[in-house]
Amino acid sequence: MAIGAVGEFELIKRYFARPEIARIQGRHTGDLMGIGDDCALLDVPTGMQLAQSLDTLVEGVHFPAHCDPFALGYRALAVCLSDLAAMGAEPHSFTLGLTLPRVSELWLKEFSEGLAHLAQKYQLPLIGGDTTKGPLTLSLQVQGLVPKGQALLRSGAREGDLICVTGTLGDAAGALEAVLAGDTQEDCADAHRKCLLDRYWYPSPRLSAGQWLRQSGATSAIDISDGLLGDLRHILEASGMGAVIAPELLPTSFALNQTYGQDAALGMALTGGDDYELCFTIPREQAATLPARIPDDCPITCIGQITNEPGIIRDSQGIPLIEKAYTHF
Amino acid sequence: MAIGAVGEFELIKRYFARPEIARIQGRHTGDLMGIGDDCALLDVPTGMQLAQSLDTLVEGVHFPAHCDPFALGYRALAVCLSDLAAMGAEPHSFTLGLTLPRVSELWLKEFSEGLAHLAQKYQLPLIGGDTTKGPLTLSLQVQGLVPKGQALLRSGAREGDLICVTGTLGDAAGALEAVLAGDTQEDCADAHRKCLLDRYWYPSPRLSAGQWLRQSGATSAIDISDGLLGDLRHILEASGMGAVIAPELLPTSFALNQTYGQDAALGMALTGGDDYELCFTIPREQAATLPARIPDDCPITCIGQITNEPGIIRDSQGIPLIEKAYTHF
Repeated sequence: MAIGAVGEFELIKRYFARPEIARIQGRHTGDLMGIGDDCALLDVPTGMQLAQSLDTLVEGVHFPAHCDPFALGYRALAVCLSDLAAMGAEPHSFTLGLTLPRVSELWLKEFSEGLAHLAQKYQLPLIGGDTTKGPLTLSLQVQGLVPKGQALLRSGAREGDLICVTGTLGDAAGALEAVLAGDTQEDCADAHRKCLLDRYWYPSPRLSAGQWLRQSGATSAIDISDGLLGDLRHILEASGMGAVIAPELLPTSFALNQTYGQDAALGMALTGGDDYELCFTIPREQAATLPARIPDDCPITCIGQITNEPGIIRDSQGIPLIEKAYTHF
Repeated sequence: MAIGAVGEFELIKRYFARPEIARIQGRHTGDLMGIGDDCALLDVPTGMQLAQSLDTLVEGVHFPAHCDPFALGYRALAVCLSDLAAMGAEPHSFTLGLTLPRVSELWLKEFSEGLAHLAQKYQLPLIGGDTTKGPLTLSLQVQGLVPKGQALLRSGAREGDLICVTGTLGDAAGALEAVLAGDTQEDCADAHRKCLLDRYWYPSPRLSAGQWLRQSGATSAIDISDGLLGDLRHILEASGMGAVIAPELLPTSFALNQTYGQDAALGMALTGGDDYELCFTIPREQAATLPARIPDDCPITCIGQITNEPGIIRDSQGIPLIEKAYTHF
């Protein structure tokens, strides 16, 4: 069939209703009815709440034009799943609103394979969506399950709680120049830069870590999408608290340190977005029993503590830190 | 504050987290946690399923540039709610992915008021979303509740069932020329044309009708967004059935008949999209007891019946009807 003759419905069937994405058997989606009717139908087990998050990604704003469609599909879903991780929720299903300027079968095949890769990893079926013509835009909504009343909120931080982060920070910021230049992993002769690009395009949503933290006494959590300082501030605002953090304690990767030097690396760790690690708070007594690595083989690092000085973040010397978080306008 | 200095978070707060949209007390959303954390949290009562539908609307594709933002907000939500109506679901909540080329406070105010108008009518809180910069695109997801296993599906039509529609058809198609010309209701000297424009911009999602039909023995339903013939075909494909319909029985409005004449009006009723009426099937014995008007003060009209000739739609003379449904590519 000529590409021009492929209708919307045929497109949806061919690339998104295929079993690798749409027929994944989730732990809680046995009775789920997905793509193919006016609505998808979901069961939510008794005693559980549905956690939902929506992310919109626009070409030229959130990702460069002509980027690798497999990486784009993977990253878009990972970014969205990261919000479930921050609530301590278990993945359930997702929907996709896809706006495309034109039909490219190759693009759709690779994009849908990127989605499928992550969807299979987390047993997360695509249950519905919409495909339209227009400037390339992805709108993904993920949903997860969390025991009623037990989600990790932003508002639970209390004075004296320790502030911790998962993984290493700043890697995605360290890749930004290469991302904007359109470099692919194959273009990278330098192993460290390749590693940073990998971290940008294939972030690991900290789902197991988030669920583990929810059950281990964490009082609040957020995923670091706009930069540590900006995202920590959301916790502080929601909790009515302040913080003191030690920037010199921020965990940075060998690849980032080698590429930019320690000082620049710490700066990226402090304000760089797109790492999708978790920032969480936990009472000191619970923190004392935390292992060095939690599920997802995820290291955790204590970087500061919560104070009762609402909205103020100070460094170890008591000097206020002024953030510059990413805003879209 | 200068408009240029308004950040994403401030925008969300000002226009979408306001009580008229975000703090609506839905019948089932008492414990719901909405805008302001990584995810929204929803309760789904025991014995109910969550029905979800996503619609993406792109400027210049699904609505004209520079259209009235109030009408746009109203219509976008109405169109999405129509999918819940087609499943017989009760509205629960919605999320909004909003991509904007620039921040216009006036536009945001009016757009959010259009959303709020309908959200209040149906007690439907906005529980989350995302605001980004880019070409004007709306991605709305609505969710509703339906008793488990009782949703009106497309797949339930059986041989001999009567085919019925709600309301009148073709009105939105009759308004299309004026919509594309950018005419507003105020520009319309002609009362009939004004009425058609109203039907285009302010469709009534048939929510009460859909719930009533679910409880009254309807076997399948779909909302007419792409044209009766195309949408009926979805029911036939899902049910493995065919249909015979009498185009001369299609209900058309006085306004449409007066503006275009009876013949052209019937043509619009047969293939015109955007009316968001319901097409449903119901066994003959149940149909015999249907009142002329069902809830929503909604007239219903029988237009044909289901046959066992899969995929074929014939008219009363037995001649196959070839549809031209709207496709986006």
